[in-house]
Amino acid sequence: MPPSLDKVVVFGVGLIGGSFALALKSAGVVRQVVGVGRTQGSIARALEMGVVDAIGTDASVVRGADLVLLAMPVGQTREVMHALAPHLDGSTVVTDAGSTKRDVVEHAHAELAGSLDRFVPAHPIAGAEHSGVGAASAKLYIGRKVVLTPLAQNSERAVALVRQAWEACGALVQSMQPEQHDAVFAQVSHLPHVLAYALVDEVANHPDAARLFEFAASGFRDFTRIASSHPEMWRDICMSNRDALLEALGRYQEGLVRMRALLEAGDARGMEDIFERARAARNRWLEALK
Amino acid sequence: MPPSLDKVVVFGVGLIGGSFALALKSAGVVRQVVGVGRTQGSIARALEMGVVDAIGTDASVVRGADLVLLAMPVGQTREVMHALAPHLDGSTVVTDAGSTKRDVVEHAHAELAGSLDRFVPAHPIAGAEHSGVGAASAKLYIGRKVVLTPLAQNSERAVALVRQAWEACGALVQSMQPEQHDAVFAQVSHLPHVLAYALVDEVANHPDAARLFEFAASGFRDFTRIASSHPEMWRDICMSNRDALLEALGRYQEGLVRMRALLEAGDARGMEDIFERARAARNRWLEALK
Repeated sequence: MPPSLDKVVVFGVGLIGGSFALALKSAGVVRQVVGVGRTQGSIARALEMGVVDAIGTDASVVRGADLVLLAMPVGQTREVMHALAPHLDGSTVVTDAGSTKRDVVEHAHAELAGSLDRFVPAHPIAGAEHSGVGAASAKLYIGRKVVLTPLAQNSERAVALVRQAWEACGALVQSMQPEQHDAVFAQVSHLPHVLAYALVDEVANHPDAARLFEFAASGFRDFTRIASSHPEMWRDICMSNRDALLEALGRYQEGLVRMRALLEAGDARGMEDIFERARAARNRWLEALK
Repeated sequence: MPPSLDKVVVFGVGLIGGSFALALKSAGVVRQVVGVGRTQGSIARALEMGVVDAIGTDASVVRGADLVLLAMPVGQTREVMHALAPHLDGSTVVTDAGSTKRDVVEHAHAELAGSLDRFVPAHPIAGAEHSGVGAASAKLYIGRKVVLTPLAQNSERAVALVRQAWEACGALVQSMQPEQHDAVFAQVSHLPHVLAYALVDEVANHPDAARLFEFAASGFRDFTRIASSHPEMWRDICMSNRDALLEALGRYQEGLVRMRALLEAGDARGMEDIFERARAARNRWLEALK
């Protein structure tokens, strides 16, 4: 069932928040979107582009909203929750778009204790290495997954509203426990980002960096695409999901130690076994996506 | 100056060898291409597809050839050199397409000692995760780099012929020392392949693998694209370029240890500095490619 939203407030009108606003407008399910940004420039641009209909200058703008989306870098989540808590009406539902969920749940318990029935944590899986409102699109979420990690305290109405809003954007909504969510994304998203940043940094710091970049080709380009991601956003994600990321990184480091041992021993068979298994697993995954 | 080739022999008619054959034909610079393969199936397919004009069943087929390309997995280089050495005419030029060069130079000294004036090591930078003659294309090399690592013993005529053949395929030809070549490609190609295979293997071996793959998205897909590369080929490359790869891997492992320390210390600033530097370096590189 499509929602009918009179007023939606988006904190952080970048790729994620801006695309949510555009998608809701495009679906015709919202009357007014109010954007709140940290910098005058980007929020003014969002207004100019028609991504938002009005600009909110402080957290009191959430009064009377049906739905509030927190889409700033996750490092600011607690501060923004703290600021908006006193202005929340009894019927306003709040959700977020953070790439980590355990920390967001903790912040909600600390800052939104009186509104836990109406705070539904969520994570739209729609990262792109481009960021900012200029990259926002009404179609970003079509066919993409959105993971909800509802709280035990959530009302059915609040969960349904967040689900319907995302479905109106074209997304496929699923639910998970916050711990499980964070472990999954540490492994398939946060760790690869760290690994890609680390490789580019190694090449950039190499004495022969200019020549290395000269001969870097399409394999390097694709492997490192995510190293063009937003540094502040990924710093926050890594810090927020430290425990799960450290665990995934630790397993990866052990894997490299094994790989190194095979190389040092000249164990061609052992090396090929890993490559074969990995290729087969990746190809099965690609097949399943079709 | 385009070469005029009467007979070209290609050992290993897969993506690389097959595309070389097709590109020479498309440029109209060769009368006959003879293919030699390990398996009857793939070489028969190359003949059917018109990639080669005839099939050679053993190394004696190199007699009377103007140019021989060795394009099998690099692990077979020495064996094939050994087999063809007794059949080499005084005017036949031999080159290879191996992704590593130091080992190929060593093998040439051991197996082609009488023909070092005419063996010109080369590496076309045109990998793709697809392999096999089915993926071959006359256009594969257009605008791609080919690195020659000529021997001190090479005749000018031999180097010029190999250069001209690759230029006829549309490639941009450059020269380098073999050691330098291997260090560069260990860093920007071989190491990323190992890292991508290692990540997919870690995910595939995880107790929660099915769910991990379910939520893996475009970042994971691009990061791991090269883990769909040919396992035997990459086993051989890793083994052939062991020293340079171990050095690059060692630096990378140290980088991960630093990354881990920043995470454990909660040093958000230090983490962001690395991410910022890496993004800036990658974006400068992409700009320079334009």
